Amino acid sequence: MTLNIGVIGVGMIGREHINRLSNKLVGAKVVALTDVNVKLAEQTEAELQGAKVYPTGEALIEAPEVQAIVVTSWGPTHEAYVLASIKAGKPVFCEKPLATTAEACLRIVESEIASARHLVQVGFQRRYDKGYRALKKVIDDGVIGAPLMVHCAHRNPSVPEAYVSDMAIVDTFIHEIDVLRWLINDDYVSAQVIVPRNTKYTHAKLDDPIVVLLATRSGVRIDGEVFVNCHYGYDIQCQVVGEEGIASLPEPESVLLRRDAKLSTTVMQDWKLRFIDSYDVELQDWVEAAKTGKVNGPNAWDGYFAAVTADACLEAKRTAAVTPIVTPPRPAFYA
Amino acid sequence: MTLNIGVIGVGMIGREHINRLSNKLVGAKVVALTDVNVKLAEQTEAELQGAKVYPTGEALIEAPEVQAIVVTSWGPTHEAYVLASIKAGKPVFCEKPLATTAEACLRIVESEIASARHLVQVGFQRRYDKGYRALKKVIDDGVIGAPLMVHCAHRNPSVPEAYVSDMAIVDTFIHEIDVLRWLINDDYVSAQVIVPRNTKYTHAKLDDPIVVLLATRSGVRIDGEVFVNCHYGYDIQCQVVGEEGIASLPEPESVLLRRDAKLSTTVMQDWKLRFIDSYDVELQDWVEAAKTGKVNGPNAWDGYFAAVTADACLEAKRTAAVTPIVTPPRPAFYA
Amino acid sequence: MTLNIGVIGVGMIGREHINRLSNKLVGAKVVALTDVNVKLAEQTEAELQGAKVYPTGEALIEAPEVQAIVVTSWGPTHEAYVLASIKAGKPVFCEKPLATTAEACLRIVESEIASARHLVQVGFQRRYDKGYRALKKVIDDGVIGAPLMVHCAHRNPSVPEAYVSDMAIVDTFIHEIDVLRWLINDDYVSAQVIVPRNTKYTHAKLDDPIVVLLATRSGVRIDGEVFVNCHYGYDIQCQVVGEEGIASLPEPESVLLRRDAKLSTTVMQDWKLRFIDSYDVELQDWVEAAKTGKVNGPNAWDGYFAAVTADACLEAKRTAAVTPIVTPPRPAFYA
Amino acid sequence: MTLNIGVIGVGMIGREHINRLSNKLVGAKVVALTDVNVKLAEQTEAELQGAKVYPTGEALIEAPEVQAIVVTSWGPTHEAYVLASIKAGKPVFCEKPLATTAEACLRIVESEIASARHLVQVGFQRRYDKGYRALKKVIDDGVIGAPLMVHCAHRNPSVPEAYVSDMAIVDTFIHEIDVLRWLINDDYVSAQVIVPRNTKYTHAKLDDPIVVLLATRSGVRIDGEVFVNCHYGYDIQCQVVGEEGIASLPEPESVLLRRDAKLSTTVMQDWKLRFIDSYDVELQDWVEAAKTGKVNGPNAWDGYFAAVTADACLEAKRTAAVTPIVTPPRPAFYA
Repeated sequence: MTLNIGVIGVGMIGREHINRLSNKLVGAKVVALTDVNVKLAEQTEAELQGAKVYPTGEALIEAPEVQAIVVTSWGPTHEAYVLASIKAGKPVFCEKPLATTAEACLRIVESEIASARHLVQVGFQRRYDKGYRALKKVIDDGVIGAPLMVHCAHRNPSVPEAYVSDMAIVDTFIHEIDVLRWLINDDYVSAQVIVPRNTKYTHAKLDDPIVVLLATRSGVRIDGEVFVNCHYGYDIQCQVVGEEGIASLPEPESVLLRRDAKLSTTVMQDWKLRFIDSYDVELQDWVEAAKTGKVNGPNAWDGYFAAVTADACLEAKRTAAVTPIVTPPRPAFYA
Repeated sequence: MTLNIGVIGVGMIGREHINRLSNKLVGAKVVALTDVNVKLAEQTEAELQGAKVYPTGEALIEAPEVQAIVVTSWGPTHEAYVLASIKAGKPVFCEKPLATTAEACLRIVESEIASARHLVQVGFQRRYDKGYRALKKVIDDGVIGAPLMVHCAHRNPSVPEAYVSDMAIVDTFIHEIDVLRWLINDDYVSAQVIVPRNTKYTHAKLDDPIVVLLATRSGVRIDGEVFVNCHYGYDIQCQVVGEEGIASLPEPESVLLRRDAKLSTTVMQDWKLRFIDSYDVELQDWVEAAKTGKVNGPNAWDGYFAAVTADACLEAKRTAAVTPIVTPPRPAFYA
Repeated sequence: MTLNIGVIGVGMIGREHINRLSNKLVGAKVVALTDVNVKLAEQTEAELQGAKVYPTGEALIEAPEVQAIVVTSWGPTHEAYVLASIKAGKPVFCEKPLATTAEACLRIVESEIASARHLVQVGFQRRYDKGYRALKKVIDDGVIGAPLMVHCAHRNPSVPEAYVSDMAIVDTFIHEIDVLRWLINDDYVSAQVIVPRNTKYTHAKLDDPIVVLLATRSGVRIDGEVFVNCHYGYDIQCQVVGEEGIASLPEPESVLLRRDAKLSTTVMQDWKLRFIDSYDVELQDWVEAAKTGKVNGPNAWDGYFAAVTADACLEAKRTAAVTPIVTPPRPAFYA
Repeated sequence: MTLNIGVIGVGMIGREHINRLSNKLVGAKVVALTDVNVKLAEQTEAELQGAKVYPTGEALIEAPEVQAIVVTSWGPTHEAYVLASIKAGKPVFCEKPLATTAEACLRIVESEIASARHLVQVGFQRRYDKGYRALKKVIDDGVIGAPLMVHCAHRNPSVPEAYVSDMAIVDTFIHEIDVLRWLINDDYVSAQVIVPRNTKYTHAKLDDPIVVLLATRSGVRIDGEVFVNCHYGYDIQCQVVGEEGIASLPEPESVLLRRDAKLSTTVMQDWKLRFIDSYDVELQDWVEAAKTGKVNGPNAWDGYFAAVTADACLEAKRTAAVTPIVTPPRPAFYA
């Protein structure tokens, strides 16, 4: 059985997902497209063949041949498309963020619960990364005992001027926010942000690096370095300290070199390569789950929780104070 | 465009390839099956649906809906099926060995040259392994300069009684034989085999470990440890020493653990997992190349060269002498 | 020239230093001993030969044959012996702590300044560890640029019931407090202490683990995990994040083992072994410096600064608030 | 008790040992010197103070105040000085080689046996290296079971024109020859030498790299790469493959650096630094053993065995054949 998919938004990430669904994954077919830029949609259709271009996301969602939706449009449009997908009773994969405010995310949560069907998945791809999965297995198997602390770092060689301070939370650390909850099966209760002196490589509108401190319901304490002009490479570190031992995210496979007075491996420069495989696994999993009416990946509640946490981090940075992370209890629907 | 494939031999490896072609890869469809065990073929067909069972490999090869053939039958039957595929002008992917004697491999080479079409690929999957590819890129990019020596090891935790001494060469070291030629772009000219004292974990019909020494046309010297009852894990090591530095095959990604007074990563136990991804990449590449009449992977000449080298290694072990590896010059067809 | 040394306090650490000075180092001779336990002093003298036992530390300090003093008595007695040594104009090596309160440390500082001679060294041995020295060289050479953050950990397999919460700061983290100031050439301005949930291996009077956060004058932010029942080993980690790159304390040399499905090195269990060599280097350096009227190692000001910082950490833990670290300006005498 | 030592030969290594004995080690005093270059001896004495300069080695050996001798003169003079020391009944530490021919070494062995006293130690310092000692402990403790193979490498960044082919055996691989026998408690029975193509960085009189193959009495097989223009650093590798697992010589401690797209440690350039600590341990051990009439380190038999093995390696290279290593049985005196 093939899942017929409509894609809303054919910018870079949209086109990458279309390519995945069409040429790398199995059991899916892109049958419908739309974009605010109609020319881009038409051009994409021409390359793809066999897909129909719709004038609006809403029209695409309602099209009878479309069985599931991928939302890769501009963030502020996500809420409306996801709500429409729920209303149409169709599975929807929405790239992060689920919506641009926590309130909007909560509306999606409530709408999905009201629909009584599991339809929404958010594009936090790290849960599908081989390394994080291996790390989670070690934790879930009890190899290191109960988690007590997490030390992690999200480092990027450099960012452009357009990348300002809030983005360190909402675009960058947001990945840690989602993946760590999943990794240690816990929820956050407070956030604090520490601002070291800036690297000389940052610019006027960006505090870089920062350290985010999170506390969880069970008392695990997390420190997460975000350093987006670290100069040396794209480097994702995650170390979970448990009662019996410590487990660290694997370093990516690399040729070991003895040369020029150094014993070295390579640190990646391009973030796109670090998690490239996980996008395939993520979307393949979504396709298969969608066919059976399930959501295995990050769901609407996860998207909402990430939004609330990100808001608290932003406030914590603004106020330099420990800031509570408050949500309603997790609905039984998402148990 | 979908490539319609017939599979000859539906034992373990045959069924794995069928599963790959049907459920994981794109652009291929298994449309025909055959096996010396007709019941097994019928049972496989029942699971697969949409494929036709043929009484013989020859009939399958000639079936008009079959565009390409995968040979995963018993080794002694390979030659006949590959020759028939060439005769039928259809691309054929033949699991190793290409044939059970060097002479038979040479007949295939000659037949393919006579057909004037590139049709034969041999199933040496290591050339498709991510780690070996990264290592080859480092070498081809000149990072370590001209190769001078290769130190490698092929270790397996244990083997059953049915695994006898010759198999250390023809089933195990054969992978190094193929992949090292490709890795350093060179051919072998002589072999020697050294037999250390046996591990206590071996059995009466198996010398274990052994060390194979190969010399290449350009003077590179290779030492390859084959140790199939090494007890601790499945471990593939490869280090290329060049004029400017040394490059080693990456260790497989693994969670780093601090526990029980050790800082450790995991060594795999199951050889099937070590190269599992490479089988997908290999077969996908073959499918795509087959559609365009090309062979990107190990070809008939490579299969022949491996057979001649393995024969020389066996003789070198028997005679405890340096044994020349002699072949005709590489035909221009395979340049 | 041989430095004639008197040792005050011949408990475990005192006897170790006596053994060092007598049998491993050059240019020193232990000529005088004293201990509150006279029998122990006499017994030590009997083993050592050639040293005189004095009834009190004060008598030993004033003895004409004593050129320099090592104080390894009970902490609360340190202040008096160090002040007496200064008064006598003799170099004194005092095991940590310099004194049990910051005020007492400051009295020593003032007394030493008044004496106008550099006489006091405190026993913070990490500055003499090969690994920390290599790390400091990398930082001082500018290899990683200006430091921005330090992530460190001090882990011990287990502690007895007698080890209570304050000791995590004053006995354990005190080493990080001293060595990090020296490592990054900076002073602290505030402290905060985070208390994750306790490991099940701790006891009623000990919060374990904790995380200490320090800020420095130049804006470097430090997070230091103290985990003294970490169960897996004695493990000292230190990573300095700079503008150009990151440098980490070397892992101690260890045989690399492939065995039992693991690729592993050994994590030490016994803290005494981790820095054993540094004690020799430390004391040899002190002996040589003392002969020339210099102090190369941690001085009285360093001992005072460590005491003030430890007090601030204790208060920060008690109040769960960011606590300023306030000292007078560094006297020119210690520039 | 202080051991009064006479040093024969005050070239670079002689002066280094004098400095060690005088300023770094305990329980020894250099009381006599001699050198073929009298001016150099006098100048050294002037720096040292308190030592007497003798006109000849023989005179020094016979001087009553000299209790033990260190021979660091030109190789061809070693035999005579060692024999004279034995005759005088005084412990002698002789830098490698013990003598320049196997026959001369055997004469020393026979003379020492005839004297019925253990007097001779040869300067193979690797047995005192911390890393090799840790590796030997792992092997002796049975952690990897019975050794079956050893893979090792001796790499140097570059050598001058004066370094010719034989020196790769007699000056460089000689260290492996001695240390591996000790490491695995075994003797060699045959040698073979393989000559890969030369690196472009070698010169006309030097085959570089080479691979030496040794077989031991118990059937262990050793492959040792000697590559003295490896360009990237001074790098000593040693991996022992046993029935239960594999143990490797530790990499020297080094700061781990993340910088410039690399995760790296430093590879040493200067061979003198790699084993610098082991010289201290070696000489201190010799001083202490000499006082009690023992030899803990490499003895005259070891020096002889190394010489015979080196000769066999040279012949093996010349003849390109497997060459037996033949000695009389180990005398009971050296059991």
